[in-house]
Amino acid sequence: MHAYRSHTCAELTKANVGDTVRLAGWVHRIRDHGGVLFIDLRDHYGVTQVLCDPDSPVFKQVEKVRSEWCIRIDGNVKARDESLVNPKLPTGEIEVFIRDMEVLGAADELPLMVFGDQDYPEETRLRYRYLDLRRDAMQRNMVLRSDVVASIRKRMWGQGFREFQTPIITASSPEGARDFLVPSRLHPGKFYALPQAPQQFKQLIMVSGFDKYFQIAPCFRDEDPRADRSPTDFYQLDMEMSFVTQQDVFDTIQPVIEGVFEEFGGGRPVDKHWPQISYADAALWYGTDKPDLRNPIKMQIVSDHFRGSGFAIFAKLLEQDGTEIRAIPAPGGGSRKFCDRMNAFAQKEGLPGMGYIFWRDGEDGMEAAGPLAKNIGPERTEAIRQQLGLGKGDAAFFLGGKPASFERVAAKARVTIGEELNLTDKDRFAFCWIVDFPMYEADEETGAVDFSHNPFSMPQGGMDALSGDPLGVLGYQYDLACNGYELVSGAIRNHKPEIMFKAFELAGYGEDEVRKRFGGMVNAFRFGAPPHGGCAAGIDRMVMLLADTANIREVIMFPMNQRAEDLMMNAPSDPTSDQLMELGLRVIPQD
Amino acid sequence: MHAYRSHTCAELTKANVGDTVRLAGWVHRIRDHGGVLFIDLRDHYGVTQVLCDPDSPVFKQVEKVRSEWCIRIDGNVKARDESLVNPKLPTGEIEVFIRDMEVLGAADELPLMVFGDQDYPEETRLRYRYLDLRRDAMQRNMVLRSDVVASIRKRMWGQGFREFQTPIITASSPEGARDFLVPSRLHPGKFYALPQAPQQFKQLIMVSGFDKYFQIAPCFRDEDPRADRSPTDFYQLDMEMSFVTQQDVFDTIQPVIEGVFEEFGGGRPVDKHWPQISYADAALWYGTDKPDLRNPIKMQIVSDHFRGSGFAIFAKLLEQDGTEIRAIPAPGGGSRKFCDRMNAFAQKEGLPGMGYIFWRDGEDGMEAAGPLAKNIGPERTEAIRQQLGLGKGDAAFFLGGKPASFERVAAKARVTIGEELNLTDKDRFAFCWIVDFPMYEADEETGAVDFSHNPFSMPQGGMDALSGDPLGVLGYQYDLACNGYELVSGAIRNHKPEIMFKAFELAGYGEDEVRKRFGGMVNAFRFGAPPHGGCAAGIDRMVMLLADTANIREVIMFPMNQRAEDLMMNAPSDPTSDQLMELGLRVIPQD
Repeated sequence: MHAYRSHTCAELTKANVGDTVRLAGWVHRIRDHGGVLFIDLRDHYGVTQVLCDPDSPVFKQVEKVRSEWCIRIDGNVKARDESLVNPKLPTGEIEVFIRDMEVLGAADELPLMVFGDQDYPEETRLRYRYLDLRRDAMQRNMVLRSDVVASIRKRMWGQGFREFQTPIITASSPEGARDFLVPSRLHPGKFYALPQAPQQFKQLIMVSGFDKYFQIAPCFRDEDPRADRSPTDFYQLDMEMSFVTQQDVFDTIQPVIEGVFEEFGGGRPVDKHWPQISYADAALWYGTDKPDLRNPIKMQIVSDHFRGSGFAIFAKLLEQDGTEIRAIPAPGGGSRKFCDRMNAFAQKEGLPGMGYIFWRDGEDGMEAAGPLAKNIGPERTEAIRQQLGLGKGDAAFFLGGKPASFERVAAKARVTIGEELNLTDKDRFAFCWIVDFPMYEADEETGAVDFSHNPFSMPQGGMDALSGDPLGVLGYQYDLACNGYELVSGAIRNHKPEIMFKAFELAGYGEDEVRKRFGGMVNAFRFGAPPHGGCAAGIDRMVMLLADTANIREVIMFPMNQRAEDLMMNAPSDPTSDQLMELGLRVIPQD
Repeated sequence: MHAYRSHTCAELTKANVGDTVRLAGWVHRIRDHGGVLFIDLRDHYGVTQVLCDPDSPVFKQVEKVRSEWCIRIDGNVKARDESLVNPKLPTGEIEVFIRDMEVLGAADELPLMVFGDQDYPEETRLRYRYLDLRRDAMQRNMVLRSDVVASIRKRMWGQGFREFQTPIITASSPEGARDFLVPSRLHPGKFYALPQAPQQFKQLIMVSGFDKYFQIAPCFRDEDPRADRSPTDFYQLDMEMSFVTQQDVFDTIQPVIEGVFEEFGGGRPVDKHWPQISYADAALWYGTDKPDLRNPIKMQIVSDHFRGSGFAIFAKLLEQDGTEIRAIPAPGGGSRKFCDRMNAFAQKEGLPGMGYIFWRDGEDGMEAAGPLAKNIGPERTEAIRQQLGLGKGDAAFFLGGKPASFERVAAKARVTIGEELNLTDKDRFAFCWIVDFPMYEADEETGAVDFSHNPFSMPQGGMDALSGDPLGVLGYQYDLACNGYELVSGAIRNHKPEIMFKAFELAGYGEDEVRKRFGGMVNAFRFGAPPHGGCAAGIDRMVMLLADTANIREVIMFPMNQRAEDLMMNAPSDPTSDQLMELGLRVIPQD
C-alpha cells in the first residue's frame, strides 16, 4: 500500500464498503460520541468521516489528536446507517473505522480556526496565511483563480495566440505610476526597474514580426496603499495583435472574457451584447467611464427647459459658459421621502443639494410635485417628463453647473438610486466598451496640455488630426467596463515615429525627451513597424468579480498587507552591510 | 475588405486563383526581373510571392520599397507557370499581381539583414533584437519555447495539478545564490528581494492544504556572467505535491518531460527507461552527477590490479588513504595515436598524464601495448582487460589518486573519448535520475560540515540518521540529467520542525539562525505540515536542448547581454535623485 494514502478524502463511496483503505489529511473536526471518536478528515479534495472506538488498537493515540493535525489512518470502510447518510457529502454514505494511525504533522494551539466561520483580523489571517488558506472559502477562491487563468490561456491559444515571456528585470517604463527599482551589483549606482506592464515589450514583439502575443503578466507598481489593489504587483492578461483595427481587438477579446464569465460566473447571466459608448456619452449618461449597465438609468441634458425659467438658480447658472443642467431619471422613485433622502445624499457629498420633481396621483390625474416643478411651471415640467419618458410614481433629479463640478456626485447618485429602487440587476454581468477617449487633457490650473491616458495610442485621423486643437483629438483607445469596474484597457498603437513625435510635441515633450524615455521603442519603429494594437485585462479584478468579493487579498495566495509588508515572510527587511556594499549604496538615516 | 489583410502570407493556394486579395507583411526580398518587381512578402505565418509589372498603377511606389518595409498590397491571385511552382512553399503554386499598395511602416537602412544567413555580433543582435527576431531561426525558437511551455502546462493540468502564482516582490530566500534586492519606498532603508525560486512558497502552499501545485515560475539570481545562463532571471517548471514519496514525484514528472521531448524533439528518440543512479555510483561511473548516458562508457575501479604492481607511481599512490585507480574503457580506441592524443588531453587539463593500455593484433594473436602494460606485466594486464570487458582494437585509460583530484578530468576524458570514437549517440535524449545525494559535505580546508545541496530535504532515515556521522547521511534528494545537463532538481522535504532544527544544527546553524532565515516556513511547520516533495525543471535549458543550441540567448525573447545589460532598452540606468530620495538611498561614488 502507498506510504500515505490509497484514496483521497473525497473518493470513497458505497462501492468501497469492506475495503481496507489508507487516508491522509487534516483533522477538520473531532467529536466524542459516547466514547467513540468521530473525526472529519479533510484534504484538498473533500472530507471523509473516520471514527475510532475503544476497541481500536490505536484508540489511545487517536485520543491525543487535535484540530489541524495532519494524520495518516488505515481503516475499514463501512456503510453508514441509512439514517446517518449525509447526501451533501460525496463520501456521505460511508465511514472508515480506524485500525492504525500515524501523526504526520502535529499542530500547536491554533491562532486561527480552520473549521467554522469565525472572522479574524486581516493581520492574523495574513500572518498565518497557511491556516487561513485551508479554509473552504479560500480554497475555493484559489482554485477559481487558477481555473480562470487556465481557461483564459486555453481560449487565447484557441484564437491563435502564443504566450511569450517578457523581461521582469528591465528598464524603467514610464507608464504613469512609480517604478520599483532594482539596484545593479555589476554596475554599481545604476538601477533596473520592474515593469509596470509589458507595454513596450509587447509592442516590440509586434515589430519583431510575431502576429499575436499574449501573456499572463506580472506587473509592478509602487503605489500608495488602497483597499482594492495590491501595493506591489498584480497580474494582467496582456495581449497584442498586428494588422488590426479596434474592432478586431474587440472581436478577439470578447469571446475570451465572455467565455470565462459564462464558465465561472456560477450561472449568473452574462450579457452578449457589449455596446460601444463614446467617452463623452459615458460621461453624460453615467457620469463615469466605467458605468455599471446593470443599472438602466441614463442621465440626460435638460438645460433648455431651465433656460430663462422661474428657477433662478439654474437659469442663472446657464448664463455661464460650459454649464448645463443634467437630469437623473428615477423610475419608481416618486415619493417625497425618497426624493428628500436623495437630496440629503447630495448634500453629504458636498453639493448644495439636488433639485427634484416627482409625479404622483393628483386630484385631476397625475400631478408633478416638488419645489422645482412649482418654480418652472407646468409646461416646462411636462416637457421634462416627456423628454425623460417618466410617468406616475417616478421622479427626476437635477444637477447643474459645469459637468466637472457635479459629475462625480451624479454618478454616485445614479448608483444609489438604482440600488435603492431595485433597478439594478445584481446577479448579472453587464459589459460595455468605452471608446473615443480624448488623447489630451488640459491641466485645470495651468491649462497645460498633457496626455489624458496612454501616450502610445494612435490619434484618430493620424497626423492630420494633430494639426488642430489638441483637446479635440480622440484616440483609438478603449476600456471595457463590467458592472462598474474597469476590466480591460487598450489601444491601437501609434506605430509611426513621425506621428509619435508630433503627438508628444503637443504634450510638451521634445524629440530628445521622447528618445530618452522610450528610445527602445521609437528606434524600433524606424525599421518597418506594423500597425498593431491590443489590450490588457486585470486578472485579479476578474477573479474578484467572479468570486464576488471586494477585497483583492481574497483572491491572491500570499498578498502583502496594506502597508506593503509580508508579515509571514518578514518583508521588507534590513539589508546586510555586505549587500549594500556590493550594490554601492548607503541608506540615509531617517529622522 | 479588412483594412490590412484578407489572408495571411501562408494561406493562398490554387483555390484562390482569380481572387482579389489583400496581404500585409514585410518585404523579405525584392528582385527586378526584366522590369518586373518580385517581392517575397513575409509575415509570421509564411511568405507569398507578389509582383508588380510596369502596368500596375502603383509601380512607381513599389519601386521605392526596400527590405523590411512593412507594406499592405491589394492584388489578383494568379497561378504560377507549371515550371515556376515552388513545392517547398505552401503558397508556391500562386503569385499575386499588385494593383494597390500602402506603406505601413518604412525602414531605415538595416543594421542587420533579416533575409539570408549572415552572422552578426551578439551585441548587434541584441541591440536590434526586433530585427534579429524576424529571422527564421529565431521565429522558430520563440514559437518552440511558447509551445513547450503550453505543452508542459497542459500535461501538468492533465495530472491534476493547478498553477498558483507566488509573490515576486518578497523576502530574501537564501537558496545559495545572491538575491536581487528591491528598496522599499514605504519603509525607507528596508528592502524586498526577488525570489531565487518559489521554494518556501511552494512548501507553504502544501502546508496550506493544496495537494498539487505547479508554476512556470520566474526565478531571479544575481549571478556572475556565464555564457550558458541568464545573468538575471530564468524560468522553471516548479512543482510540489503532498503525501508523496520520491518515486511518486518521479512517476509524475517523467511523463511530462518525456512527453514534451517526444512532442518537440523533432523525431530524435527519447529514452523510455530512466535509470536511478546513486550519487556515489554516478561519480564513480561518470565522474559527474549529470552524466550523458548517450555515451555508453562507464568507468570502473581497478585499484587491485595496481596494488603492489610494477607500475610504481600507482602502487605508491595506493598506499595513501582514500586513493584509487580508475579505468576509463575506450572500445575502439586501440591505437597508439589515439592513446597519445588522450594522454596529451589529460596533460592539457593539468594532470601529469593518463596511463593507458591498448590491445592490438600481435604476433601471437592479441597483444597489450603501452608502457603501463609493460610495467605491470601480462597477468595483471589481462585481468584488467577481462574486468573491463575489452578486446582487440580497444583501449583503457587510467587515472589515480583521490577521486576529487582527477574526477573532473576523468569526466571530461570520458566525454571526449565517447565523441572521438563515435560511441556517443548524438541524436537521442537519454535521461537518468541521480538519487541518494549526501546531505552534508566537509569543507576541504576547514573540515567544517555544511549542507551539500538543499537544506530543506528530508534526510533518509529521519531523525535517527542524524545521530551518526553527518557525512554519511543521504537525503531524499534527486536530480534528473539529460544528455549531460541537469534538467530537474528536487527533493522530499523535511517537514518536521524537530528534524529540521537538528539537521541545521549539524551544519552549524542554531535554532535562532534558522528561525531568522526561514522563519516563515519553520513557523508553518508547527501547524500540521503534511509530508511533501517536488522538483523544479529548467525551462530555458529544456528549450535549449530541444532547439539544439548551447546559447541561452537563442531561446529568450529579450535577453540581457553577458554584462547584464539591455542595450535596446538601456538598462540598468541612472536613477533620478527624486527616486533615490524617496527610497532613502545614496549612491556611493565609485573610484
